[in-house]
Amino acid sequence: MKDIPFERISEKTGVPAERLETSFKKGSSRLLESGGLRALLFKKQVMDLEAGTVAYLTGEPEVIRGFPKIRRTLLLSPAIEKHFTESVAVEEKMNGYNVRIASVSGRILALTRGGHVCPFTTEKAKELMDLQEFFRDHGDLVICGEMIGRDNPYVSHDYPEVGPLGFRVFDIREKNTNTPLPVMDKRRILESYELPAVRLFGIFPVEEAPGRVAEIIRMLGADGREGVVMKDPEMKLPPLKYTSSQAHAREIAYAFNYPFDFGRPFFFSRVIREGFQAYELDESDEETLERAHRLGEAIIYPMLKRIKSIAEGEPACEDTVIDVEDRERAEEFLRHLSRLGVSATIADYRDGKATIRRFYQSTTDRITNYLEGGLY
Amino acid sequence: MKDIPFERISEKTGVPAERLETSFKKGSSRLLESGGLRALLFKKQVMDLEAGTVAYLTGEPEVIRGFPKIRRTLLLSPAIEKHFTESVAVEEKMNGYNVRIASVSGRILALTRGGHVCPFTTEKAKELMDLQEFFRDHGDLVICGEMIGRDNPYVSHDYPEVGPLGFRVFDIREKNTNTPLPVMDKRRILESYELPAVRLFGIFPVEEAPGRVAEIIRMLGADGREGVVMKDPEMKLPPLKYTSSQAHAREIAYAFNYPFDFGRPFFFSRVIREGFQAYELDESDEETLERAHRLGEAIIYPMLKRIKSIAEGEPACEDTVIDVEDRERAEEFLRHLSRLGVSATIADYRDGKATIRRFYQSTTDRITNYLEGGLY
Repeated sequence: MKDIPFERISEKTGVPAERLETSFKKGSSRLLESGGLRALLFKKQVMDLEAGTVAYLTGEPEVIRGFPKIRRTLLLSPAIEKHFTESVAVEEKMNGYNVRIASVSGRILALTRGGHVCPFTTEKAKELMDLQEFFRDHGDLVICGEMIGRDNPYVSHDYPEVGPLGFRVFDIREKNTNTPLPVMDKRRILESYELPAVRLFGIFPVEEAPGRVAEIIRMLGADGREGVVMKDPEMKLPPLKYTSSQAHAREIAYAFNYPFDFGRPFFFSRVIREGFQAYELDESDEETLERAHRLGEAIIYPMLKRIKSIAEGEPACEDTVIDVEDRERAEEFLRHLSRLGVSATIADYRDGKATIRRFYQSTTDRITNYLEGGLY
Repeated sequence: MKDIPFERISEKTGVPAERLETSFKKGSSRLLESGGLRALLFKKQVMDLEAGTVAYLTGEPEVIRGFPKIRRTLLLSPAIEKHFTESVAVEEKMNGYNVRIASVSGRILALTRGGHVCPFTTEKAKELMDLQEFFRDHGDLVICGEMIGRDNPYVSHDYPEVGPLGFRVFDIREKNTNTPLPVMDKRRILESYELPAVRLFGIFPVEEAPGRVAEIIRMLGADGREGVVMKDPEMKLPPLKYTSSQAHAREIAYAFNYPFDFGRPFFFSRVIREGFQAYELDESDEETLERAHRLGEAIIYPMLKRIKSIAEGEPACEDTVIDVEDRERAEEFLRHLSRLGVSATIADYRDGKATIRRFYQSTTDRITNYLEGGLY
């Protein structure tokens, strides 16, 4: 422990060294090899230091801060007026998984939310984007974005504009401090390096924003898309997120595919969102009725389908096809999933296409038990 | 503590004295005045001794055992065949609150689930039934039943056959041991004292029971009624409960009147029941669609209505009218509610009709906060 440079991490991040040390002693942070480099991973937040932060310890420490949790608003008005000052930048929130990309000791690494280097994501990020030039000029910056698309082993969602897999950048942040670039600076720099940004719907005066966001949300919902992140253009205030009814229904339907693996809070919070959205956005009784029916169907049908398939002897699992260079890469990815506690296997491998099968054991076990006459 | 006769309670109940003592030391049971008598209330289960058990300590101890939790089955088949032996008695499960009535030291007392003597319930039980003769002959027995009806301050549900308030007996059990009478013995004894029993739908061979119960549940559901309790006719095996889709939807709708006062498990478990019932009972795609829509509507509409009314400045509350002899009786009932931790007031009193208003503070506070722009 003595050789962990808590003092220098403290200087860079502003979090007192003794707090960093306590976190380590309590097991809230741990040493690991991250992308081949020695690093300290913070599994839990320490004061302002976000969970998922990784401090690389090769030479001068470099800290890739965790991506800050974005708070949600249940209503657009008056939350937007209350939260922001003059204007709000509205960007698309996409349904994939959160990735931070940084260059550390000459290696480009892609970290998932918890702070683990994912070998699949690292490789795909480099395939999808030309990152060399950006990091040569801006080694002090971190690219934060969403890995999206159908052939996505974490969150599969079809976005026709990206093909099977794509990446969209939503933030550029400084190493060590996590300071984000202002929205337009970020977009300009991304453009100059030909890196793909999430859609910007506009920068609106706060008084106009609730109405404009309501329109955008309707449009996105009708398109089966997720929602928006609202940002202070200067990025001095924390952003807010807001999502479409269709996104809630889709997530609920997904969770009810595996009802005993997804927690109760997952379910309850999404239902609450629907109540507030009905209050604020529904323009007719018909719209509310449609919302109610969409919700009920999102609950019942996936659950019914799952019970039927388990009754027929199929375990609850989920297949995603990923594109890999060879079978060894697929196996490396499985080992990564296993370290994260995910039970999965390669169901099929053929010509660079690996079918990753993930198992939902609690759902299989509990439904099987009830089907055999077990009591609730 | 030395004067609590743990040894004698142990002899009567079969639970070791030292376990009873430990429970007391840990604060899981406590001394109180119960219906004017000194008693020990078990708030938590101790081995076989159910939560809600009350040991009266005047003279020879007498133990009114807690009412045993009835387990639920999510599927009728094969659970019934697996759980029961030859035949199953199917009785109606009614939607009210659980009451145990016993005679202790010459007083007839009515206990609610947790083991508290409720003054309102005690008075009403005696008004609704002639209990003197029964307890004169059977001082060693406890009448277990449901207080039901519209003018019910705990669970208001209209049962046309009882008028504003009624009582239905479902079990007769022995003091101290909690041994229940066999189903037909119980019904005969109730009949001979003209005490009202819950409906018995029949005693069916186990192979026939799942089909018969399915029919009964359809009929009850269509009537807006709750469900059934299935019992071993000899009462040697624990009973099982099963409820209608309409009951689930009604309870969900009720909970979404007060979304932040009802727990997430309340909601989740009812939704799960619907999935299994759809699997087992739905005879057509239309029935499943109806079920899904009923569920979605039960969630969205009450929540939307509540958000609207709070936006208009009304706090979340629930009114029930109870019939009392005088205002003092209503106030006594309020004090009882307050001891149980329930926030309520008398909103109106006129000619023996007291309107009890119960407040749902978390729902009011949290919805108000979101309406003012608070973040989730």
